[in-house]
Amino acid sequence: MTDFVLHERLAADSVLVTKLLLCEVRLITDANYPWLILVPRRADIREIHRLTVEDQLQMIQEITQVSEALESHTGAMKMNVAALGNMVPQLHVHIVARFENDAAWPGPIWGVVDNIPYEDGALKALVFALRQTVSPMV
Amino acid sequence: MTDFVLHERLAADSVLVTKLLLCEVRLITDANYPWLILVPRRADIREIHRLTVEDQLQMIQEITQVSEALESHTGAMKMNVAALGNMVPQLHVHIVARFENDAAWPGPIWGVVDNIPYEDGALKALVFALRQTVSPMV
Repeated sequence: MTDFVLHERLAADSVLVTKLLLCEVRLITDANYPWLILVPRRADIREIHRLTVEDQLQMIQEITQVSEALESHTGAMKMNVAALGNMVPQLHVHIVARFENDAAWPGPIWGVVDNIPYEDGALKALVFALRQTVSPMV
Repeated sequence: MTDFVLHERLAADSVLVTKLLLCEVRLITDANYPWLILVPRRADIREIHRLTVEDQLQMIQEITQVSEALESHTGAMKMNVAALGNMVPQLHVHIVARFENDAAWPGPIWGVVDNIPYEDGALKALVFALRQTVSPMV
């Protein structure tokens, strides 16, 4: 069994918000959408159904925790939750806050418009705020 | 509390495969992809995180059961699992078997190409086979 190492593409596209029991919670650095990913710290797992049953139960709990936090922080009307992973083989679950005036509404967000970088200050403030909301006890 | 009624758009786009403890398992009638949806029989729920904790645990178990069955039946290289629901407000989780030669690979499938209807015989045979694979005890 190999150790978990974050995939280089996920590392390049996101910044750490916090670590939960199973997953790293990371913010995708695309200002088009409030967009988090959950990455289970498990090596060589590409599918949710390949996690152990215990990890699956933890996964759904962390999906709920992060969805509620992002919904609460953004006031979004809809959360999109998806494990796709056709291009990046490391299991990661997208949690995206959607608005009727966002760049891809009502379609899925992937591949629709070019990423917009956050300004430095805005990125730091958002990560700080999300960290408080996702794991307020830490 | 109102009773669960399948959303008319989901009813029009899919056929019943089987009923699990929480969800209807339905095949989307688009021959481009082996494409199932899980629809929890719960009224007025739009988000996974709005399910009760008990239903969430059942949801992840049924996602695993159906993902494994569809993977096993199709031999697909990747399963895509997604709760989007921007257009249809009734909670439904897509489970899609993906192949490197499918119409949308490696992107998401939604809205990429027009639906292709199944031929009658092919649809019946696929539903029958999936029913055996998803819930072999019934």
